[in-house]
Amino acid sequence: MVDGKYGLGIVGFGGMGSQHGRMLEDNQKIRVVSVCDLKADRLEAGRELGYKTYEAFEDILQDAEVDIILLATPNHLHKDMAIDAFEAGKHVICEKPVTLNADEMRDIIAATERTGRKFMVHQNRRWDNDYLTVKKIFDEQLIGDVFNVESRIHGSRGIPGDWRHVKAYGGGMMLDWGVHLIDRIIMMFNEKLSKLYCEFSYVWKDECDDGFKLLLTFESGKTALIEVGTLNYQSLPHWYVCGTEGTASIRGWNLEGEMMRLESFEEKDAKPIVAGAGFTKTMAPRGEDSVVKLPLPIVESDVREFYANFIDVIEGHAEPFIKNEEVLHIMEIIDAAFVSAETGEVIKF
Amino acid sequence: MVDGKYGLGIVGFGGMGSQHGRMLEDNQKIRVVSVCDLKADRLEAGRELGYKTYEAFEDILQDAEVDIILLATPNHLHKDMAIDAFEAGKHVICEKPVTLNADEMRDIIAATERTGRKFMVHQNRRWDNDYLTVKKIFDEQLIGDVFNVESRIHGSRGIPGDWRHVKAYGGGMMLDWGVHLIDRIIMMFNEKLSKLYCEFSYVWKDECDDGFKLLLTFESGKTALIEVGTLNYQSLPHWYVCGTEGTASIRGWNLEGEMMRLESFEEKDAKPIVAGAGFTKTMAPRGEDSVVKLPLPIVESDVREFYANFIDVIEGHAEPFIKNEEVLHIMEIIDAAFVSAETGEVIKF
Repeated sequence: MVDGKYGLGIVGFGGMGSQHGRMLEDNQKIRVVSVCDLKADRLEAGRELGYKTYEAFEDILQDAEVDIILLATPNHLHKDMAIDAFEAGKHVICEKPVTLNADEMRDIIAATERTGRKFMVHQNRRWDNDYLTVKKIFDEQLIGDVFNVESRIHGSRGIPGDWRHVKAYGGGMMLDWGVHLIDRIIMMFNEKLSKLYCEFSYVWKDECDDGFKLLLTFESGKTALIEVGTLNYQSLPHWYVCGTEGTASIRGWNLEGEMMRLESFEEKDAKPIVAGAGFTKTMAPRGEDSVVKLPLPIVESDVREFYANFIDVIEGHAEPFIKNEEVLHIMEIIDAAFVSAETGEVIKF
Repeated sequence: MVDGKYGLGIVGFGGMGSQHGRMLEDNQKIRVVSVCDLKADRLEAGRELGYKTYEAFEDILQDAEVDIILLATPNHLHKDMAIDAFEAGKHVICEKPVTLNADEMRDIIAATERTGRKFMVHQNRRWDNDYLTVKKIFDEQLIGDVFNVESRIHGSRGIPGDWRHVKAYGGGMMLDWGVHLIDRIIMMFNEKLSKLYCEFSYVWKDECDDGFKLLLTFESGKTALIEVGTLNYQSLPHWYVCGTEGTASIRGWNLEGEMMRLESFEEKDAKPIVAGAGFTKTMAPRGEDSVVKLPLPIVESDVREFYANFIDVIEGHAEPFIKNEEVLHIMEIIDAAFVSAETGEVIKF
């Protein structure tokens, strides 16, 4: 504790590590006190911000002002570092993906039980406005009963950074973005998964997947498609949501999109249209007399609730927003997606 | 023959049958001489157009002026009617899907060999401008080497008509639209299929599939996604095409769309962007300094080439534009898609 605040030590002071520092700047209950990194320029950046700095992980664990370790290191290091931190008496916030697989996450859960320390994964994209907006449409049946959700992220810059190209370090897009997109779909559908099929893409000819298509089928028969691409110079919509009484889409980060909702099924203008070298009535778009265009019910959010919740969890006042069992389940699904992609088979649950 | 033209008899004078009549109105080599249907109003419509009319299929087969039978009857009738027509000495044009499965198509091929009659399936959507435009982009590598093609048709009116709701009559969207979309993808990729995975949708709670997602993987590793939906109040683009140097899309029947092509890989503006509750550099859109937007290379076409080609085939002057072996292969793929959808498994070839 420092001046009545929980002291936090950031391990891995790269993009996400320094971002946490900025988001915690005026936090009421947490103060960043130190950073740990192998790179001199990052330690220099930490010193300029007034933090104590450590090159060795063992040393930041000895820092008595540090109550919470925040892990923003490459993915393959999370498990051992988290367990070492618990054993040094620290609570741990961990970047995503929590680990390389479900077994490692089970080891972490066992260690929290043994040590009584708290552990929460920064699944920050549960606070994305686009996701929360789609979840509201889903939960409140604003386009009827939603039976299919498609969640896509398309970029054109390949796999980022350095270690994300290396399989042993937990590289690839399934672990980087898949862990977010799967987590959100599982939270939204909130029912048992019955099967999945996954295809990885290797269009950049790397050893790690540079994108994937993952098809999920739930026990009710509802479906989801999750897709990541890194060689896509145009994007399909981030969200495409099909309900029994309408369709919603959100095109990109700016939340542009709409709900098209059925108003009356019988239509005055249901005539075949010219369609390429043929005609179609089945696929003729509906006219204004039967479908109404509605604005998206945008949900606002503040991801900094994450930190306040973690303190409440430490102090025993609240359930964690992100439960370790949920995170474990996502890792089990990712394990299954790897098996599906490698064998070319469907995985049934 | 009638006045030096081939006489054609249309069997099934509904939507497609009467459409063939209109398309053949000023044909140089074919004249529609008679129609056959069970429904009185359709026969009346035929009489008004000056055609001879028959209620019984056996009777139109006796019409000596009829050289070519055009089958626009429900799908389960095609096989027996085609074989009966061959045996009556007639050539046959057949609506799609040719049959309910590959075995029936094999019977037809055997019968053409036995009788020496010609048979061609009206895969008219090989003449669609959107398909031909995508095929040009693919063949001429206008966005580099194309590694993924997505072909979608979305409507919101359910399964059309009456018999298309009945499995025994060859109903459902896989046979109705799948047969076109698969045919075009197979013609475009022109390489061996290695596996497929298919999911049917039953959102209208019919006995026939009202839509599907079909994932194809070819031997080179290239992929295609084919999708049909009939409860979609907004459409995803009809075509979404990913190449190593760009992405193309065509949004709908009106051929609206573009190619986004990479001009220079290193970009001045490659900075992380705010993205929901986080940041991303990987998924930041490219700026104008590295990607150029190009118009689609629209290909014009005339589906009436189909009839001229069929006459050339009969007279021995040309190869058929639509080969029976190609049509058989599509039916084999459809058979496999049904098995995949029913078992929930991947089919490997």
